[in-house]
Amino acid sequence: MKGTATKMRLLDAGLDVLSQDGLGGLSLGRVAEAAGLSKSGLFAHVRSKDHLATALLDAGTGLAHREIVAPAMRASPGLARLRVLVDRWLGWTARAGLSGGCPVAAALFELDDRPGPVRDHVATIERNWRDFLAHLTAEAVARGELRADLDPEQFVWELCGIYLSHHTASRFLHDPLADERARHAVDALIERSGGTRAGQKEHP
Amino acid sequence: MKGTATKMRLLDAGLDVLSQDGLGGLSLGRVAEAAGLSKSGLFAHVRSKDHLATALLDAGTGLAHREIVAPAMRASPGLARLRVLVDRWLGWTARAGLSGGCPVAAALFELDDRPGPVRDHVATIERNWRDFLAHLTAEAVARGELRADLDPEQFVWELCGIYLSHHTASRFLHDPLADERARHAVDALIERSGGTRAGQKEHP
Repeated sequence: MKGTATKMRLLDAGLDVLSQDGLGGLSLGRVAEAAGLSKSGLFAHVRSKDHLATALLDAGTGLAHREIVAPAMRASPGLARLRVLVDRWLGWTARAGLSGGCPVAAALFELDDRPGPVRDHVATIERNWRDFLAHLTAEAVARGELRADLDPEQFVWELCGIYLSHHTASRFLHDPLADERARHAVDALIERSGGTRAGQKEHP
Repeated sequence: MKGTATKMRLLDAGLDVLSQDGLGGLSLGRVAEAAGLSKSGLFAHVRSKDHLATALLDAGTGLAHREIVAPAMRASPGLARLRVLVDRWLGWTARAGLSGGCPVAAALFELDDRPGPVRDHVATIERNWRDFLAHLTAEAVARGELRADLDPEQFVWELCGIYLSHHTASRFLHDPLADERARHAVDALIERSGGTRAGQKEHP
């Protein structure tokens, strides 16, 4: 039981380090210090820096699930669920209590030229995420809430761009209009895809 | 003269390291090795890691100017120029001979939580870039090629999202459809903004 509590402290502290400094800033020493553990105490739980990185990315995925996916799944299926998901996705790390940005978004730029197990792990997380978004989009199409000839993967591709643009606008440029601009872009994408704007009835 | 040639070799080699490994992977030793210089030879040109980083970011901006801005400025002003700019911007680092991705895009995610002179430098580069894009967009509006009530900053905000999504799709996910999806997204954004699709006459 003590082992589990220590591991959770390690993952919480490590995820915060990862969120702030990215995979490049991650080290066993840094995470041990943040978790209040000795380096040998840390080694009882993680065997290498790569193992630490993948464990922290998984912890981040778990947190994102609670913060983004679970509330969306409580909403009605279709466009309403997709809207809740996007609302919870934009800026999720701050609401989840992390000090920094999205570890996966950062890794997409940090690891693009670094083959290896961590990059492969990020690629799997990202592909699963996009598949999930495409599934929700296809559900809205099947319900007639988005147009029948919509390509869900193109829709998700553009949605990911809005997420990344919001991440840079809010976290890097500290643009006070970041949320508003993202909402405008999402509404326009949905409208272009045959959906109604937020606030309008889905089935008029 | 010898000093200038050495400095150019240092900037070329250093920019390639930066493009591959990001600011986190940058070190004086690494760049000295890539440029075939001794560490003391490097110190004759750069005083610190921060100084090296800002010099390399400026070298990257110069390269982007030649690769993206100069060809756009040779095109007719307005929407035609904006289209050339976007075409040259997407995937520009590979065409410019860099082994990795866009150093500024990576820095927007890497440095979001790291205050300091390098972050400030990146913020200035990014703001100048967005201002330039907004200026080209406003020019297309003034010529009646985009609708009069268009908000150029919102347009640029969404364009930056397409650029970032294309960067992750092509460089990280190795998606063979990355170029096609980006082109589709740009065309849709322009059409929504009152412009004609590529290939149609701007003034029918």
